[in-house]
Amino acid sequence: GRKVLIVYAHQEPKSLNGALKTVAVEELSKQGCTVTVSDLYAMQFEPRATRNDIVDCLHNSDEFNYGVETWEAYKRGGLSNDLIEEQKKVQEADLLIFQFPLYWFSMPAIMKGWMDRVLVQGFAHEFPNCYDSGLLKNKLALFSFTTGGSKEMYAKGGINGDIRYLLWPMQHGIMHFCGVKVLEPHICFAPEYVSEEKRKEMLLAWAQRLKTLWKEEPINCSPEWYFK
Amino acid sequence: GRKVLIVYAHQEPKSLNGALKTVAVEELSKQGCTVTVSDLYAMQFEPRATRNDIVDCLHNSDEFNYGVETWEAYKRGGLSNDLIEEQKKVQEADLLIFQFPLYWFSMPAIMKGWMDRVLVQGFAHEFPNCYDSGLLKNKLALFSFTTGGSKEMYAKGGINGDIRYLLWPMQHGIMHFCGVKVLEPHICFAPEYVSEEKRKEMLLAWAQRLKTLWKEEPINCSPEWYFK
Repeated sequence: GRKVLIVYAHQEPKSLNGALKTVAVEELSKQGCTVTVSDLYAMQFEPRATRNDIVDCLHNSDEFNYGVETWEAYKRGGLSNDLIEEQKKVQEADLLIFQFPLYWFSMPAIMKGWMDRVLVQGFAHEFPNCYDSGLLKNKLALFSFTTGGSKEMYAKGGINGDIRYLLWPMQHGIMHFCGVKVLEPHICFAPEYVSEEKRKEMLLAWAQRLKTLWKEEPINCSPEWYFK
Repeated sequence: GRKVLIVYAHQEPKSLNGALKTVAVEELSKQGCTVTVSDLYAMQFEPRATRNDIVDCLHNSDEFNYGVETWEAYKRGGLSNDLIEEQKKVQEADLLIFQFPLYWFSMPAIMKGWMDRVLVQGFAHEFPNCYDSGLLKNKLALFSFTTGGSKEMYAKGGINGDIRYLLWPMQHGIMHFCGVKVLEPHICFAPEYVSEEKRKEMLLAWAQRLKTLWKEEPINCSPEWYFK
């Protein structure tokens, strides 16, 4: 069976994000997938990239360079335990689902910290192994999120601009960079402003999409596709 | 004299980011500006948006909604002290400078957490007061950062795409949304791969730009400008 890692960032289990996460666990498990959840707030996941991420001596203790130090630490097995555990989950997964509420046109800081700290050089990429030859190739990723603004506000002519614009740093800059192929995002627009009925439909739509997820083709993560 | 807040995110004072921050403090002070620095790593700034940000009772303790709770807490003066202090600094500032190394096409999580937690509804925006009528209008912001990739990689036809694409969520989605006018970003490309001589030129160029900063016109933060 396939393996799925859901990286989930919401403080409240009763939220729509919490329900979307539960729907994914249930539907994918039903399909025979092994589903692991990194519940970042519940884990009190550390988002700050600091010297604490390296357990032993520094490569260059005179001038701390986070990228170099984590790269070196990765190679000698000297990263902190919380990072090693997340990297194991990523390594085993066929599909990464990121479930979160959109904060300021991006993911919440706690999830950005997961990207900053887990996707270390040597593990996720290592020059020239980036983009199509990134070290996490043969994996899929999917950004599933809720917004405050409506679909119209995130349209091409809308005040917020095309929703794909703000997905660029995440889909291309992070996932594609690591070689991960990206599925269409799953977006629940403005759930706080719709009826309970509508929110139930959103959950149903997500469950429905997951049924045929493995047949989906990845999107094209190139500037030509995005910005034309 | 004008007031400037530098929000700074680097672990190492000896880094180029540290030097760029120092150059800004010195040059702006020389001009008679009052300069305040929020040194996020040194402050061990909390990036996680949690219930701890609200000191008293919750508006709705049955289902925690961070946006609603911080909005309500802001109105009754019930936000945690670290947020109140950062909001005071923002309120007093004429110009916000964000100084950081680019992490994954965006700012480091510790700085994203500053955005998530400080720019609370009621303080920075309050519907319909967003974008040109955002509550922080009459302020300026400038993103000053270093990259790993070269200028060519971040060009329009380059593998990373136009650097402005990844600035969209920060410049338009955060600053413009709050009514803040945005100055041209200041970018030091790939300082790790150039000579010490070149890095000194980068510091000099930043000092030079700051001399005439107050005469600069803000950029146009609309999708038409960005994505054409």
